Amino acid sequence: MTDETWINETLYPAWGQRFRIVRELARVRSDFQDIVVFESETHGRVLVLDGVVQITEGDEFVYQEMLTHVPLLTHGDARSVLIIGAGDGGVLKRVLQHRGVTRAVMVEIDGEVIRLSKEFLPGIAGDAWSDPRADVIVGDGIDYVRRAPDASFDVIIVDSTDPIGVGEVLFTDEFYENCARILTTNGMIVNQCGVPFMQADELRDTSLRRAKFFPVVSAYVAAVPTYVGGFMTLGVAAKGGSLDGIDKATIEERADRAGITGATRYWTPGVHVASFELPPYIAQHLPR
Amino acid sequence: MTDETWINETLYPAWGQRFRIVRELARVRSDFQDIVVFESETHGRVLVLDGVVQITEGDEFVYQEMLTHVPLLTHGDARSVLIIGAGDGGVLKRVLQHRGVTRAVMVEIDGEVIRLSKEFLPGIAGDAWSDPRADVIVGDGIDYVRRAPDASFDVIIVDSTDPIGVGEVLFTDEFYENCARILTTNGMIVNQCGVPFMQADELRDTSLRRAKFFPVVSAYVAAVPTYVGGFMTLGVAAKGGSLDGIDKATIEERADRAGITGATRYWTPGVHVASFELPPYIAQHLPR
Repeated sequence: MTDETWINETLYPAWGQRFRIVRELARVRSDFQDIVVFESETHGRVLVLDGVVQITEGDEFVYQEMLTHVPLLTHGDARSVLIIGAGDGGVLKRVLQHRGVTRAVMVEIDGEVIRLSKEFLPGIAGDAWSDPRADVIVGDGIDYVRRAPDASFDVIIVDSTDPIGVGEVLFTDEFYENCARILTTNGMIVNQCGVPFMQADELRDTSLRRAKFFPVVSAYVAAVPTYVGGFMTLGVAAKGGSLDGIDKATIEERADRAGITGATRYWTPGVHVASFELPPYIAQHLPR
Repeated sequence: MTDETWINETLYPAWGQRFRIVRELARVRSDFQDIVVFESETHGRVLVLDGVVQITEGDEFVYQEMLTHVPLLTHGDARSVLIIGAGDGGVLKRVLQHRGVTRAVMVEIDGEVIRLSKEFLPGIAGDAWSDPRADVIVGDGIDYVRRAPDASFDVIIVDSTDPIGVGEVLFTDEFYENCARILTTNGMIVNQCGVPFMQADELRDTSLRRAKFFPVVSAYVAAVPTYVGGFMTLGVAAKGGSLDGIDKATIEERADRAGITGATRYWTPGVHVASFELPPYIAQHLPR
């Protein structure tokens, strides 16, 4: 393979990003999807599932910090956290950074993603895999939430692919209904809702579906360098409390208590509060 | 040309975006740069200068609104505005939306950009070209600011290419010194400072340079779909006053007075205030 070899992301048929490949590290057809790991010139190592970039070493901090710290610090007292997907371990690492978390269950359907991440992207999860508070399960997240006891988690973080392929069942009524059931009183669920400039339906459909089971539905934004196309939205739904009305000083105080202050490169209390300010072209897709 | 023809942006040598082309509309070598206009499948028509995407019909509103409304409403009483570059006319249109603006001088070095924009991208400027408050000059912005009288503008908006090629001279000491001279007491200048995830030097160098001539230097962010790579930064420098300490209610009141409320798809008073909340990976490049 020469250094003139490029990989084109195939998420959108007529627009997208491309990377020049230094070398390919793995190419596996798992039971669920095509997995590629390659070394890029610009973004470190890159994990690709079914042709869609999932994570790069260079910019993973943006997505992982925003997917984790915003719900945990919006909740304010999250002890038991369920992570669905996120096989690279980056969300697990951020969840375990919170001092108050006593239990983090991670359910990833594809053991090959975990295996390849441990081998080729070890820095993303760091020591999280061996943390005594972590329970890493290779299994079906749909089935897990179906069987989990009522009120057993404070926060559920869904780090799925887009609602196509293996991730599609994570966007159904049954899934959200069970999530609501297994969350505690002010529990909340967060999941990525795509890049609205390119995938407006994703935010609209997911928000409408969650509104059936959660009284409080909102969304916040993050500018993730390799989720190209402007802001991506992270949809959040809660059984109670407020999602976007929390002031910066409160978030700052919670972050200090959790041990997060100074440990981030994208998230800050200010960025946290700011991320709920949605441009109208995005806000129009949320239920009112 | 078949529908399988793609254009690859060449801004970065080893990563970037690509568009499938419906058809090419113009390809011109002007006295200053290579200009291409094409019809994309996904983003409407696209203007490319020296291989770098400048504007698409689909997402131009993000960049134009943030480059214009933030400085004008941060200033609060801008009457005379100088625009350098911005040959597509989109900034001119947004400046003239402000009721209080009595004069907008636009100096674009490349008349071919204006000509091609009028022919192929007429919706971007709309009626702005014929507004009696507009003075559109085909000429050298460096020379213009050298000869302009002291204190003749309230806001200067520089919509340049990156500091390479024809835009390079817009990032020099002499240019910023003259801009400070021709601005009024609380006058301010804004210019794009690239995408820090890919071009951190651009924000750092520009901010340091402006700090020599302006007591107040800051930056804000915008997630522009086709300026790929996460947030782009818009650097702003002022001769006095505050840039990032203005509350949402004040901005809202100014927007009402200016006639901007409800006329935007990305900018809102909330987004305005939020845009000054910089992630640490960006803030570290600003002088402290």
